Amino acid sequence: MPVINGDRLLRDLETLRTFGKCGNGVVRQSLSEVDMESRRWLVERMADAGLDARIDGIGTVFGRSRNPGKALLVGSHTDTQPTGGWLDGTLGVMYGLETVRAFAESRETRDLAVDVASWIDEEGTFFGLLGSKMFCGLVGEAELDGASDAGGRTLRAALRDAGLEGSFVERCVPDRYRAYMEAHIEQGPWLEEEKRRIGVVTGIVGIRSLSIRFEGQQNHAGTTPMARRRDAGAALVTFASRVHEVFASHAGPRSVWTIGTIRLEPGAASIIPGRAWLTLQFRDADEALMDRLGDLVEDLVRECNACGPVTVSIEPAKDRTAAALMDAGLQRYLEAAAERHAPGAWMAMPSAAVHDAQNLAQVLPSAMLFVPSKDGISHAFEEDTSREDIVLGCQVFADAVASILLEGT
Amino acid sequence: MPVINGDRLLRDLETLRTFGKCGNGVVRQSLSEVDMESRRWLVERMADAGLDARIDGIGTVFGRSRNPGKALLVGSHTDTQPTGGWLDGTLGVMYGLETVRAFAESRETRDLAVDVASWIDEEGTFFGLLGSKMFCGLVGEAELDGASDAGGRTLRAALRDAGLEGSFVERCVPDRYRAYMEAHIEQGPWLEEEKRRIGVVTGIVGIRSLSIRFEGQQNHAGTTPMARRRDAGAALVTFASRVHEVFASHAGPRSVWTIGTIRLEPGAASIIPGRAWLTLQFRDADEALMDRLGDLVEDLVRECNACGPVTVSIEPAKDRTAAALMDAGLQRYLEAAAERHAPGAWMAMPSAAVHDAQNLAQVLPSAMLFVPSKDGISHAFEEDTSREDIVLGCQVFADAVASILLEGT
Repeated sequence: MPVINGDRLLRDLETLRTFGKCGNGVVRQSLSEVDMESRRWLVERMADAGLDARIDGIGTVFGRSRNPGKALLVGSHTDTQPTGGWLDGTLGVMYGLETVRAFAESRETRDLAVDVASWIDEEGTFFGLLGSKMFCGLVGEAELDGASDAGGRTLRAALRDAGLEGSFVERCVPDRYRAYMEAHIEQGPWLEEEKRRIGVVTGIVGIRSLSIRFEGQQNHAGTTPMARRRDAGAALVTFASRVHEVFASHAGPRSVWTIGTIRLEPGAASIIPGRAWLTLQFRDADEALMDRLGDLVEDLVRECNACGPVTVSIEPAKDRTAAALMDAGLQRYLEAAAERHAPGAWMAMPSAAVHDAQNLAQVLPSAMLFVPSKDGISHAFEEDTSREDIVLGCQVFADAVASILLEGT
Repeated sequence: MPVINGDRLLRDLETLRTFGKCGNGVVRQSLSEVDMESRRWLVERMADAGLDARIDGIGTVFGRSRNPGKALLVGSHTDTQPTGGWLDGTLGVMYGLETVRAFAESRETRDLAVDVASWIDEEGTFFGLLGSKMFCGLVGEAELDGASDAGGRTLRAALRDAGLEGSFVERCVPDRYRAYMEAHIEQGPWLEEEKRRIGVVTGIVGIRSLSIRFEGQQNHAGTTPMARRRDAGAALVTFASRVHEVFASHAGPRSVWTIGTIRLEPGAASIIPGRAWLTLQFRDADEALMDRLGDLVEDLVRECNACGPVTVSIEPAKDRTAAALMDAGLQRYLEAAAERHAPGAWMAMPSAAVHDAQNLAQVLPSAMLFVPSKDGISHAFEEDTSREDIVLGCQVFADAVASILLEGT
């Protein structure tokens, strides 16, 4: 079986970290200059490993094996949040690269075909999960035309500036592949809490995102008596505080919900807010439970409108990601490899975060492996994983990939 | 007694409205290019009316009477909010100008001395009530050094760009003046509700402004279990909703309170807010009641900190304006003039908004007159007052000024 080279893996992870390094963290948003530099570096590393590698027309780095037979596709993403951690999806891409290199060094595995992808814009600078959606044929040209970043720069302009406009875009040919496999940091606290070193993912939670709008009347904060106010901000805080109460009593044990943005207009200390918005996002692996939570939000909107004096409405959800199950057979291979290298120190668990594997699962049997996140922190500069866990995770991952390809052929 | 020229007054108000006109409203923030243009236009109108007029070193337009004897100072402001109405303080400045012109046309009043001021930056683009504070000696150089607009441009830079740096700044010489008088739109609904056309202001409410800060832990909105969260946004909405409850049951009948700004950091749908801020402003004419309301906020902060898991603190208040009484003798003159021109259609009332008169009241006997605001709306493009009420208000104002100067001499 393949033996991965932990030093080589860590060295490459550290090199990739220098692209956009910011303290302990990394700022490498997709299609930025530093992201494109890192992609060119990654293409070179893939080529060194014998892959036929390039950046495709949407920004994904794709390295295709030259070996014959059914291939296994390994992927994740190297772009980051505006204040990102150094591992996140980068870990999974480098596991793929190290797997290819380790395979080439062992007689038993050197003819196995493994393709490696770094999907563009998983983090949604322009369009969440963009690369994997394109690869799986899950996004239309009109959606691409409408995509832009927080500053209003369009995806099309960013692709043009990156020199990618008009280039060929990779598309999944399902016949080529045996399966898709992705490794990622857990991003949560469960592995650490349970003192486990490997997580075998059973499924990925679904996400509902709602934007809720409050329409009142802007007015002077001194001269408008309380009884005459239609204060959109006051309605918002009451509503938001009710959401937290109602969800706390009706959600499931693994449900999470977040009000991550609030905006008051015009947003001045001396002016009664005339309009206000919040975003409410909630996640669970149980779609029926999420339907019930969605109904509760609609009840709250009706309650609030019945009381007045502010009008509340739910704006059509832009994002709605269905829960996705991971392939049971592939999970068995990951479990066996984990038990070989870390007996008793692995567990099966759902993923509470979105991953590219959600899209791949629609076209290929897919599976994911997690390594622990220190203190459960991610999407923040402090994100980290112990070097031992990084190396262990890669060995388990490479082992599982080898087993699948050897036994599956 | 003086007879004001309503057409001339309305014509000049309409001309001044063209500087920064935006639909029915006006955008003329202090020291902007269009504000400076309007100030130069105002200097010319004052000069036409016989005043010795110029823009002083802080931006205030000051027109000094050439007549002998004790003078009466009339003022208000011509700068606007980011989305301002066309009248607001502009009304009071133009009442002053029209009063001077009407006085010159009547044998009885033509030797009376009336100075007219348009105080800079009442609306606080850089520093609220700046012009009247400077004139009354209520602001230090260090405070000026620290003042900047929402975009970070300093007051010093704006003064330099406006060509005012180093110019002479007018200061109040109390011996020169009999009194200060200011007219303004009411900005509230009370006159309209009571079907009155003139308000004689008894006093101006005090204002307390608090900035409240919530310190939690930023984290991933999917992978962080609810029980482990330290969500600054969730703490903020619960706190804010409690503020509204507690104030509703403890405030006075004329008290008002507003949460006009809320900020979540980082402010993304998929990230648990690590920090959050709100501003709470409350106003009442009763300082003891305001002390009690301030104590209630501190109680809520203690409650919230006792529960955790987010730390709440009150940041030192930047603004705190004490309530100010208007001069009783001057109110009698305004009441008599109102009763002459609008018998039974005036009322005494407090001002719920801040005015430059608050500062002048610290150095001179001061009084204010209000005209109705349609639907009580102000600091918004829809702000308006009927033409009849505008003209009536000016006649009452000019009458009162004449009486004070004639009887006071």
